[in-house]
Amino acid sequence: MAGEVNVLTLARDLLRCASVTPDEGGAIALLASVLEQAGFSVHRPVFSAPDTPDVENLYARIGTEGPVLVLAGHTDVVPPGDEAGWTHPPFSGDVSDGKLWGRGAVDMKGGVAAMVAAALSQVRKGPFQGSIVFLITGDEEGPAINGTKKLLSWAQEKGERFDHCLLGEPTSVGAMGDTLKIGRRGSCTGRLTIHGKQGHVAYPEKTQNPIRAALPVLAALMQPLDEGNEHFQPSNLEVVSVDVGNPASNVIPASVTALFNARFNDLHTLTSLEALLRARVAKAAGGIPFELTFASSNSEAFLTAPGPFVDLLQKAVEAETGRMPQLSTGGGTSDARFIKDYCPVVELGLVGTTMHQADEHVPVDELEALTRLYSRILELYFSG
Amino acid sequence: MAGEVNVLTLARDLLRCASVTPDEGGAIALLASVLEQAGFSVHRPVFSAPDTPDVENLYARIGTEGPVLVLAGHTDVVPPGDEAGWTHPPFSGDVSDGKLWGRGAVDMKGGVAAMVAAALSQVRKGPFQGSIVFLITGDEEGPAINGTKKLLSWAQEKGERFDHCLLGEPTSVGAMGDTLKIGRRGSCTGRLTIHGKQGHVAYPEKTQNPIRAALPVLAALMQPLDEGNEHFQPSNLEVVSVDVGNPASNVIPASVTALFNARFNDLHTLTSLEALLRARVAKAAGGIPFELTFASSNSEAFLTAPGPFVDLLQKAVEAETGRMPQLSTGGGTSDARFIKDYCPVVELGLVGTTMHQADEHVPVDELEALTRLYSRILELYFSG
Repeated sequence: MAGEVNVLTLARDLLRCASVTPDEGGAIALLASVLEQAGFSVHRPVFSAPDTPDVENLYARIGTEGPVLVLAGHTDVVPPGDEAGWTHPPFSGDVSDGKLWGRGAVDMKGGVAAMVAAALSQVRKGPFQGSIVFLITGDEEGPAINGTKKLLSWAQEKGERFDHCLLGEPTSVGAMGDTLKIGRRGSCTGRLTIHGKQGHVAYPEKTQNPIRAALPVLAALMQPLDEGNEHFQPSNLEVVSVDVGNPASNVIPASVTALFNARFNDLHTLTSLEALLRARVAKAAGGIPFELTFASSNSEAFLTAPGPFVDLLQKAVEAETGRMPQLSTGGGTSDARFIKDYCPVVELGLVGTTMHQADEHVPVDELEALTRLYSRILELYFSG
Repeated sequence: MAGEVNVLTLARDLLRCASVTPDEGGAIALLASVLEQAGFSVHRPVFSAPDTPDVENLYARIGTEGPVLVLAGHTDVVPPGDEAGWTHPPFSGDVSDGKLWGRGAVDMKGGVAAMVAAALSQVRKGPFQGSIVFLITGDEEGPAINGTKKLLSWAQEKGERFDHCLLGEPTSVGAMGDTLKIGRRGSCTGRLTIHGKQGHVAYPEKTQNPIRAALPVLAALMQPLDEGNEHFQPSNLEVVSVDVGNPASNVIPASVTALFNARFNDLHTLTSLEALLRARVAKAAGGIPFELTFASSNSEAFLTAPGPFVDLLQKAVEAETGRMPQLSTGGGTSDARFIKDYCPVVELGLVGTTMHQADEHVPVDELEALTRLYSRILELYFSG
């Protein structure tokens, strides 16, 4: 019967799709088929950009009225690496020992399957006041250029509007539901080149060693940026590479280049942070010439302020699991950084322990518990 | 007539030999011929070592008694680089505008020609009390493995003993004879790797950034080593390369490697300096694991203490040029670092301004003045 789906079967079938970014691998097609059968209107836009592969995405909606709840996720996965390191082949979808095994089990085909199963359960119960939208991309683990960002813009141009979004990333830390992500730190990557004057190491007075000049500058960059606030940990900057490439021990080099990345909270914007870092470099460099550039892919910090939507999610988790989830903004980035420009977004999903590792897996009972949790969230959300 | 040689002709003929290390280019053969004709007994030992090219050297002696004065030098030259940058082809030996042009004009075929011309002049005057030895290598600008070091050892095994050595490197700074090198700083090259714990930049608490740890260590390495002394400038250490090679801005790397070189005075030995640097690194690293290795080619500082030989040279310069030469231990290394283990060695030669540059050249009158100066030194030396 249309509208029925078993979460384990769906997750297993998704895991059997070798959808390493940017390959669709059959995963988007499978979801499209399931959602269409359940009455969703489904679109599969393919986005392109120079120097990046084309990527297929999925947009599906059921309902015409508000409130509009978006269920967001991705079907692409990171490469499995050396398959010899896997006990269960990465795209086998093996179920054994009460666990479902495979690349993407927790990040995040398991979460996608649970969202779909919960949505279909909601639909099966009969008409409800509101709409459910699926926003699924195949470009979250890759460049993220032809994925969620363009899909949101595409939907907006079609006149689509959203009230809230639940993103099914594996946010849980120790037990399913223990952590809600209500924001993400921003990410700021920069490259700093410090110039000196090349020359023979025996005559340092005729040279200016850029490495000597770089040490206090790099130390200044890594000084604390703030003390954090109620919802965010302190911002942090790490210099991740320093490179000269000089093989000659008797030559003082002409320049040194450093690559750095800051993860910053909402006490900064990209603009204010870049200005702060530029000022720090200029001060520490003390007149030594330098070049400082920032990556175009840098992203802002954001927070979905606690309120009714977050309350609803917390209550659902507590009712389903008996534990009140922590509100977190830690960790890396996700597509929530794009969604937050369209509607409040909160992330809630599986325990992420094995994500990106060999033998990634999810306990079957956790998958089923997440489906029940998502079902409860939908029920609460659409009951007003 | 045997024993007669014109310094300009000899220098020009040497410049026409394309003797870029390790090629002999005809230069050693030419010197052998000239010295044999003048009555020297000449040997041309070729030395070999794994992973280095064979190199031909020249050992020539006239006289059987003491005192034995060694005249040392090299006929190999650094590559000319882009010949388009030369007004006169680098191996043309052109004479124009009162100058002799070509690679090696000052470093140091000009000096070798002047030493040979002066020695032959001394021989031509008739019997003298003592011996003149030529120690000429073709491996000074290269690895210096099959050159002076082995030639000295070879001569020692033959029973040869030396009283003093004059090395004809271009030591003069502004005017011919203004500087005598009575020693050289030691050179100590080392490589330091600092280890951390790799991980995602969003979770720095699970990592240990080796770059963060490296900054104070590199700063400690470059702290002053001493204040110098009467004959030496302060020792100095420069970090000349720092390399990580991490292209991923979201990854904290596992390690960082630095290359450094110290030029140090006789307040240190290699052993004491290496121990000092190791202690500095260990203290600044504060328990962070590191590896510190030193190059096998490192060399000791040395000083030929002022005394009768240095006095003689100073007096000769003053008589010939009207200026009292400065005593210096500055600049890079030379083969004096090998000779000092056999006898006191002092370096005195042309103005080095154009060495290793395009359009290297020597004024003809400077070449002739150096020949007169060397002649005066020989005369003073053998007159007791």
